[in-house]
Amino acid sequence: MIHAGGSTEAPQHAAQYRAVRDTTTALAAPLSAEDQQVQSMLLASPTKWHLAHTTWFFETFILRERAAGYRVFDPHYHYLFNSYYEALGERVPRPDRGLITRPGLDEIHRYREHVDNAMEALLADGASDRIQALVEIGCHHEQQHQELILTDIKHVLSLNPLAPVYAPAPSPVAATATPNGWASFTGGVHEIGHGGPGFHFDNEAPRHRVWVDDFRLATRPVTNRDWLEFIADGGYATPSLWLSDGWQTVQAEKWEAPLYWRRLDGEWREFTMHGLRAPHPDAPVCHVSHYEADAFAQWAGKRLPREAEWEIAARSVAVDGQFLDDGIIHPLPRGGEGLRMFGGVWEWTQSPYTPYPSFRPAAGALGEYNGKFMSNQMVLRGGSCATPRSHIRATYRNFFPPSARWQFSGLRLAE
Amino acid sequence: MIHAGGSTEAPQHAAQYRAVRDTTTALAAPLSAEDQQVQSMLLASPTKWHLAHTTWFFETFILRERAAGYRVFDPHYHYLFNSYYEALGERVPRPDRGLITRPGLDEIHRYREHVDNAMEALLADGASDRIQALVEIGCHHEQQHQELILTDIKHVLSLNPLAPVYAPAPSPVAATATPNGWASFTGGVHEIGHGGPGFHFDNEAPRHRVWVDDFRLATRPVTNRDWLEFIADGGYATPSLWLSDGWQTVQAEKWEAPLYWRRLDGEWREFTMHGLRAPHPDAPVCHVSHYEADAFAQWAGKRLPREAEWEIAARSVAVDGQFLDDGIIHPLPRGGEGLRMFGGVWEWTQSPYTPYPSFRPAAGALGEYNGKFMSNQMVLRGGSCATPRSHIRATYRNFFPPSARWQFSGLRLAE
Amino acid sequence: MIHAGGSTEAPQHAAQYRAVRDTTTALAAPLSAEDQQVQSMLLASPTKWHLAHTTWFFETFILRERAAGYRVFDPHYHYLFNSYYEALGERVPRPDRGLITRPGLDEIHRYREHVDNAMEALLADGASDRIQALVEIGCHHEQQHQELILTDIKHVLSLNPLAPVYAPAPSPVAATATPNGWASFTGGVHEIGHGGPGFHFDNEAPRHRVWVDDFRLATRPVTNRDWLEFIADGGYATPSLWLSDGWQTVQAEKWEAPLYWRRLDGEWREFTMHGLRAPHPDAPVCHVSHYEADAFAQWAGKRLPREAEWEIAARSVAVDGQFLDDGIIHPLPRGGEGLRMFGGVWEWTQSPYTPYPSFRPAAGALGEYNGKFMSNQMVLRGGSCATPRSHIRATYRNFFPPSARWQFSGLRLAE
Amino acid sequence: MIHAGGSTEAPQHAAQYRAVRDTTTALAAPLSAEDQQVQSMLLASPTKWHLAHTTWFFETFILRERAAGYRVFDPHYHYLFNSYYEALGERVPRPDRGLITRPGLDEIHRYREHVDNAMEALLADGASDRIQALVEIGCHHEQQHQELILTDIKHVLSLNPLAPVYAPAPSPVAATATPNGWASFTGGVHEIGHGGPGFHFDNEAPRHRVWVDDFRLATRPVTNRDWLEFIADGGYATPSLWLSDGWQTVQAEKWEAPLYWRRLDGEWREFTMHGLRAPHPDAPVCHVSHYEADAFAQWAGKRLPREAEWEIAARSVAVDGQFLDDGIIHPLPRGGEGLRMFGGVWEWTQSPYTPYPSFRPAAGALGEYNGKFMSNQMVLRGGSCATPRSHIRATYRNFFPPSARWQFSGLRLAE
Repeated sequence: MIHAGGSTEAPQHAAQYRAVRDTTTALAAPLSAEDQQVQSMLLASPTKWHLAHTTWFFETFILRERAAGYRVFDPHYHYLFNSYYEALGERVPRPDRGLITRPGLDEIHRYREHVDNAMEALLADGASDRIQALVEIGCHHEQQHQELILTDIKHVLSLNPLAPVYAPAPSPVAATATPNGWASFTGGVHEIGHGGPGFHFDNEAPRHRVWVDDFRLATRPVTNRDWLEFIADGGYATPSLWLSDGWQTVQAEKWEAPLYWRRLDGEWREFTMHGLRAPHPDAPVCHVSHYEADAFAQWAGKRLPREAEWEIAARSVAVDGQFLDDGIIHPLPRGGEGLRMFGGVWEWTQSPYTPYPSFRPAAGALGEYNGKFMSNQMVLRGGSCATPRSHIRATYRNFFPPSARWQFSGLRLAE
Repeated sequence: MIHAGGSTEAPQHAAQYRAVRDTTTALAAPLSAEDQQVQSMLLASPTKWHLAHTTWFFETFILRERAAGYRVFDPHYHYLFNSYYEALGERVPRPDRGLITRPGLDEIHRYREHVDNAMEALLADGASDRIQALVEIGCHHEQQHQELILTDIKHVLSLNPLAPVYAPAPSPVAATATPNGWASFTGGVHEIGHGGPGFHFDNEAPRHRVWVDDFRLATRPVTNRDWLEFIADGGYATPSLWLSDGWQTVQAEKWEAPLYWRRLDGEWREFTMHGLRAPHPDAPVCHVSHYEADAFAQWAGKRLPREAEWEIAARSVAVDGQFLDDGIIHPLPRGGEGLRMFGGVWEWTQSPYTPYPSFRPAAGALGEYNGKFMSNQMVLRGGSCATPRSHIRATYRNFFPPSARWQFSGLRLAE
Repeated sequence: MIHAGGSTEAPQHAAQYRAVRDTTTALAAPLSAEDQQVQSMLLASPTKWHLAHTTWFFETFILRERAAGYRVFDPHYHYLFNSYYEALGERVPRPDRGLITRPGLDEIHRYREHVDNAMEALLADGASDRIQALVEIGCHHEQQHQELILTDIKHVLSLNPLAPVYAPAPSPVAATATPNGWASFTGGVHEIGHGGPGFHFDNEAPRHRVWVDDFRLATRPVTNRDWLEFIADGGYATPSLWLSDGWQTVQAEKWEAPLYWRRLDGEWREFTMHGLRAPHPDAPVCHVSHYEADAFAQWAGKRLPREAEWEIAARSVAVDGQFLDDGIIHPLPRGGEGLRMFGGVWEWTQSPYTPYPSFRPAAGALGEYNGKFMSNQMVLRGGSCATPRSHIRATYRNFFPPSARWQFSGLRLAE
Repeated sequence: MIHAGGSTEAPQHAAQYRAVRDTTTALAAPLSAEDQQVQSMLLASPTKWHLAHTTWFFETFILRERAAGYRVFDPHYHYLFNSYYEALGERVPRPDRGLITRPGLDEIHRYREHVDNAMEALLADGASDRIQALVEIGCHHEQQHQELILTDIKHVLSLNPLAPVYAPAPSPVAATATPNGWASFTGGVHEIGHGGPGFHFDNEAPRHRVWVDDFRLATRPVTNRDWLEFIADGGYATPSLWLSDGWQTVQAEKWEAPLYWRRLDGEWREFTMHGLRAPHPDAPVCHVSHYEADAFAQWAGKRLPREAEWEIAARSVAVDGQFLDDGIIHPLPRGGEGLRMFGGVWEWTQSPYTPYPSFRPAAGALGEYNGKFMSNQMVLRGGSCATPRSHIRATYRNFFPPSARWQFSGLRLAE
């Protein structure tokens, strides 16, 4: 169940719908039909599939059920573009998504148009509260896939020996070292989770009490400069720093730097959406796994934040930082003093992804949205340079397996 | 780091040492040299290896470091019988433990005698506090392996088409249905974790505050009767009940009942240490994974307890139940009213295994004891029919991956 | 080493070059950019890769070495489109061919044009004998890839639940049962292998003597009607009919019919390049592995031909049958009496693919063409409906692993 | 079908039976119960299983069918100790043979005694021709397993970091370089295969004609001295020497020397049944795969013999060489001049293992003996230091996959 807490005027929903849909299309625009076809690993999906699946979401949960006279674009798509909803029947096995070459990209664009026309007609009519709530969910769902479009295609392009560029490189950023500081917070019984109005996903609720001891958080994420020290100090070769599963992964995968770092002629280079570059020393390190984040924290004599700590700290500051809207799909150094909690990179916490007390997913297919993934994953917080600004908030819980590295994932220290 | 909180008199340590060592030997006694050689799966180990490794623990952490003039039994054993201590150097890869046929069992018995003689001489001399603390750790460590000897060999024997019996069957137990009840607890800020005197493992500390909402726990674990209903109601075929990873496992492993259940001539039979039997309807279900436990709770409209809830409830009752000391290595029905929290089966909680606030493993090899496994595992509580009674307490945290089924693991409902 | 035995006039080479290149382009024409991007299994390659690799062959072995002033189209292509020539350095790992989305299809067409222009200029100049020989090799090489383009894309399309059509279905063929007969041949010392003028691959030489006992061959390949009997008689469930490796494969892969057969509503349907159809009872069975062919022969109380037998028989008849040139990419029933050895389906022999006596691959990269694959593969003979007619001859040796099924492979009985 | 061509007097069969059975027991005698329990890789089996399976063979094919009043030792053994006879029903999956700890070794010895008593009674009675033929087959079958007992346990022991010794080392052999020579043979139509009286396996028949060109064979196998040169010349790092599958295996398995060679302190040492040793330069190289043998021959500018060539050469000399009967289970240098074809090491040929013309396995379970393995294997000839002398002959065809290295397999050059 996804809970849309607030209520918005219908025209606003139509505008939100149009804006989100246009953004998705724009993100795919620099990519060829071939780029959009390929699935480069099990957990990733083709761009074309993302374009279709987000559309399928509106068709399935709104148009098929609630739009009188809606003509389904193609009945096969129900099977082709279901992601994981068991309640909705069989679907293309996840590893095979990249093998479905037809419908082609042009056809998927027609599918998007078909659904957009129907959605806009529906919204123009003055949609019911339930429909408006579903639209809002669908838009947030599509924003999640916007980020995945970028992280998934980055992985595809990174495997190409030509190191292709997703988009022209923005002009270089001047190096401005932001010294780290520590922000202190007082423990006690706090409330976390989403409670008030405004949209949130079901896994952010209910608001509930937790006990937290006094804690301190670093004012900024760990930087590439910090990470180079960790590497230089043998961090990737010191088993005592690592969780047991992490160490096994380091050895099996031969990790010796973040994903996308390569040593060329003795220098570290980082594959980015904008080309190969030297890692900027003051930018947040990204594309590290939870295992690496945890090992780094051990090495630094600190620890990762718990998600309650992170949320308590984050709600004390504005949702301000580098987001997808800024157009540079790589974390930049960030000047200025004070606690910065949002944007740039997702931050691994030390909290496994579990249900909040009295969380229960609702009945129906939408109940499969979040709850069933509460196993073997870790919570990340804060959003990244690939996250739409309007998508993030202090209570937002992202989650990935502890070995995942292809998201824009970094870390912040706590103590 | 393993913390031995209390202090005991030296003679008592000698007696404890002797008792634990004798119990281990006695548990292996019904097994042939061949039985004790084999490793039937990655996570299990041969009995012979357990016999040697527990001995290696005393040799490595006490005799080599603290017993003047101690002659190492065989320098190769340092490599052969190290389990996972990276700080102590290379070791036999875990999957290969069952391939080391030499030293043979007789030699391992000589190794045990050699170490026992040295240990007893050391303890007779009036050992230092540090040594006494290490002995206590070594004894608790060996008790953990006593349970593993039983669960690992059960897996070996279960693969044999002859369904061999570990020990003669105790006389059958009369069926006495114990109706389930619910025990209520009041929420608020509670303290959990080990704080006072007495031995505990490092992962049980420090005692710390947590917030807990009001909750209720079932007074007894889920029974085979309950489980047969779950099966009959299609529990193993209903994806909406399962965590996503759980459902994948059900399908990949073709689970349709607890491990060791087989359908013979249309009837369920359970492979036990005492022979094939019909599952007793009033006995706790066992050999279920966390995934199955969670799905059952979903099906029942309840949930699994959090570990804090379990501990709060458990310290209100005595450590009383069916343990290894009772000599029947299979959970029995348990009569009587009231809340029963210990023995019979380990109980899966809904809590991932994570460090308590300000937990830090100590420096040195013993620091690898618990902390490095705090990833991808779930906490179990309460001890089982294969756990020595003196090994368990309300704060005790056991942990296994959510897919593990070969321990005597069951569940209790909460709401 | 590939031996071009004969000599042809230069204009003829230019014409041959143009014809072969145009055919390749035409075969890919019905496919979208997405279709041409995907690699659906390890042994297959994307269409786009085939288009580029065949071009790379001319660029690498002719233009770079022998065309003065030739400007390499893109130096990266040397790495990107090398198939398996170790002597030419590193290349994209075979399983990753489908992940290289750039260069895109348009760019590859420009590559083909660039190379074609250079080649035509070279040939117009009156090319040397060596160049003419290399052109001939390159053309035959490209013809091999023409067949692979079809078999590889058929596999891709077959995985699509929409069962897409490669090309419109030709009009149905009337059922005309051709009764099988037996052609007898007299044993003794025969010569096989390529000896005279005309192009041949290195693995067809040298012509050499073999002893052959008297033998008989069926006059036509085994048909779908025959195969349906084999299925109905439990052929896929009778281990005694199968080679041990074959039986393991049947069980592991759950084979119960040829590749591309599916049971829909109780009827067998065959996925073809022209749509889903009932298998025509009089058409040769195709898409069977060597294991299946051998099991069928066992079941029929016969055996597969040896390659020497096949060749002796084949040179007694004309190279006449259904080929790529006929435009129907699926084997058709073939009327008429008498021995028919060519076209329709490749025929598995019982001969492992081994070197002929005194075969030695030549020095240099072209020496890697055939010899290094002489291990764990079986010889097929005769060409198929996807083979260009000008590509085949009685001495031609095709080879695939005994488990391969995605070629148009069938069988003929011998005794 | 196994064909026992000749006829022998009954008492002789009883003596043969007794001698073979005693040899098997003697070969296992140096091994502990633990040694005999373990299966170290898929293709190997535990010693205990070999002891039982060879006994099962006599029980199944002779006693159960032809000994009136025979009491089956344990009906479960029919399932437990069937190797691969599909016609005889289900069996323990091959990878699980090492997990069956019960029956234990003592029980298997009782099983052997039970069957031996019944067999000897049967033979004392004056057995029928059919029984005598089956006894002969059973004895040859058991001799095959004698060699496997040694090669399989060698693999087990080699994995033990203690490098255990199977039997005390025989006294060292003086180095006596035997220079290689070349023996020439005239081509033409030859007959090969078993034709006359005397025992042979079905795969050696029928005797049949083949064409062979003139050829020359080296008079002795390739030695360790030769192999060290191959290593020193970069043989394991030169892809052009290797079959494609071979090169893949070299890279995947990181081969850089024969199996059981290890570099200790910069020197090659070879794990043998008699301890770790420097490879004797004049001894035949052994534990090389077909891939390595073929690459060596390429490197040497020669080739491997075809099996027909080998057989033609071998029948010109006596069956004389180093066999199991000599008691040293490692190939020794062999002095003297002239063509030596037998013993020491099995010799890889370039011939895939295929049926001789008109070979057909007989009906019934014994028909599964050889024919069904005629796929993906290569023929070896000549017997090794682990082969009983009475087991070998010029027509004998051994076979293993081209990647197998754990047999005593070497090579001889041809040209």
